Amino acid sequence: MAAPLFDRVALIGVGLIGSSLCHAMRRGKLAGHIAATARSAATRAKAAELGLVDSMHDEPGAAVEGADLVIVCAPVGAYAGIGAAMSGRLKRGAIVSDVGSVKQAVIRDLGPAMPDGVHLVPGHPVAGTEHSGPEAGFAELFDGRWCILTPPPGTDADAVERVVEFWRRCGSQVEIMEPGHHDIVLAITSHLPHLIAYTIVGTATDLEDSTQKEVVKFSAGGFRDFTRIAASDPVMWRDVFLNNREAVLEILGRFTEDLTALQRAIRWGEGEKLEEWFTRTRAIRRGIIDAKQA
Amino acid sequence: MAAPLFDRVALIGVGLIGSSLCHAMRRGKLAGHIAATARSAATRAKAAELGLVDSMHDEPGAAVEGADLVIVCAPVGAYAGIGAAMSGRLKRGAIVSDVGSVKQAVIRDLGPAMPDGVHLVPGHPVAGTEHSGPEAGFAELFDGRWCILTPPPGTDADAVERVVEFWRRCGSQVEIMEPGHHDIVLAITSHLPHLIAYTIVGTATDLEDSTQKEVVKFSAGGFRDFTRIAASDPVMWRDVFLNNREAVLEILGRFTEDLTALQRAIRWGEGEKLEEWFTRTRAIRRGIIDAKQA
Repeated sequence: MAAPLFDRVALIGVGLIGSSLCHAMRRGKLAGHIAATARSAATRAKAAELGLVDSMHDEPGAAVEGADLVIVCAPVGAYAGIGAAMSGRLKRGAIVSDVGSVKQAVIRDLGPAMPDGVHLVPGHPVAGTEHSGPEAGFAELFDGRWCILTPPPGTDADAVERVVEFWRRCGSQVEIMEPGHHDIVLAITSHLPHLIAYTIVGTATDLEDSTQKEVVKFSAGGFRDFTRIAASDPVMWRDVFLNNREAVLEILGRFTEDLTALQRAIRWGEGEKLEEWFTRTRAIRRGIIDAKQA
Repeated sequence: MAAPLFDRVALIGVGLIGSSLCHAMRRGKLAGHIAATARSAATRAKAAELGLVDSMHDEPGAAVEGADLVIVCAPVGAYAGIGAAMSGRLKRGAIVSDVGSVKQAVIRDLGPAMPDGVHLVPGHPVAGTEHSGPEAGFAELFDGRWCILTPPPGTDADAVERVVEFWRRCGSQVEIMEPGHHDIVLAITSHLPHLIAYTIVGTATDLEDSTQKEVVKFSAGGFRDFTRIAASDPVMWRDVFLNNREAVLEILGRFTEDLTALQRAIRWGEGEKLEEWFTRTRAIRRGIIDAKQA
């Protein structure tokens, strides 16, 4: 039997992404041993009960000991603390990666905690569902989806290549990107859609009770798709917005300008302008279908 | 064999909804004869080729002749013209219904064209896909979904009951609602979500070409759900916004206030406010799942 890609992998966090990685690593025989930790005792107990890991630890320092690959799968607001907790326990030659939805802040918060001879290769699998927690994971989550890696300049090429291989064997296609560029692209493809979905569902929540019941009843007209997106993990998303502030505010500014223009067209009955706008948006949908990301 | 519910049904328009009605009527044996028309010759030819109807006519007047039930399945901006074209040809005792996404404007535009003894029972099946045209229809589109009927005060009760029965046999649950209330509820559950989706996809369309390619590539992070909604028929949606202006502008005002509040929370790093907002939106999702509309 071929040797696993890594002898020992440590996961810091076993929510949707962490638990899916457990399943994908088992499927691909990628880890000789999966160690993990989680912030809450309930999550640690649940993950152990589900048999997701080979060893469960009380805190990051213990989990990363002896690990060849460490993957941080926690809300990005927790990274600075996690970095401090594991810093002195990392093995020389270890690779530290993550799955956070923002990348400049990850390098800012984890970078200083990396000892000499430890390689930081931040990553972001562009995949997910609206479910959270260790029960939510499944091996196929990453199949056919993109994983973006954002190694800082000068990162060891072999370490990057091993992380690329890891994600390929998890089913993903891999792209290397500059961290700042990642944060801009994801601000529009992921962060703004989530912010908008959270907003509109919140707007509905403020309607009087009787109307709100009808909103639920007749949600099939478009609203329910927004509620699915707006059911994502609140803490994870709080941290995304706090840690990608500039890019989100920039793209939100553009969005608001466009929405105001359409609002004006509705108020003044400018049908041609509306139709023209609604027609050109179809091209992007075709592109997504062609790219097999639909 | 039991007699069909209506001897002769005429459809004005055979796009996604009209063609789905053809399939659902066949499945439920609801019509002795399905007559239809469509604005474009290409659509008429396609619908005939697909065998959707028993007779295809060049214009609404010819299609409705002798029909017991007429269902207008066209963009709501075309209703006034359709009303004028069929008015003198409607059979006494006929029921005229429709599937438009706004209801006050439908009564305004079709009402005056109804001769004495013809019953107007406007309807709105809250169901759809992002696909358009006669090829897009399927019999199951209405199964388990709501159909809202908005008969004006004083409408013949038997006529209403027959339309209720028609939609039940198409697989739907039926709700009777006041037209103005319908337009407010749908403004939030359907019209605003579509406007927002069209806006955000348009915002992405304006990005420089290289970034736009990446937006397509990494759309699985939330954006692709918006592109699906924003691929809906442009003319139909133009007409919805032009004909439900007040309700859409009112709910859009609330949405913009809420979005501005969240924008401010992001700018000033108010994490608690964000987390609180993102948490309470989960309750509505649970309501939709419980109501089996997810």
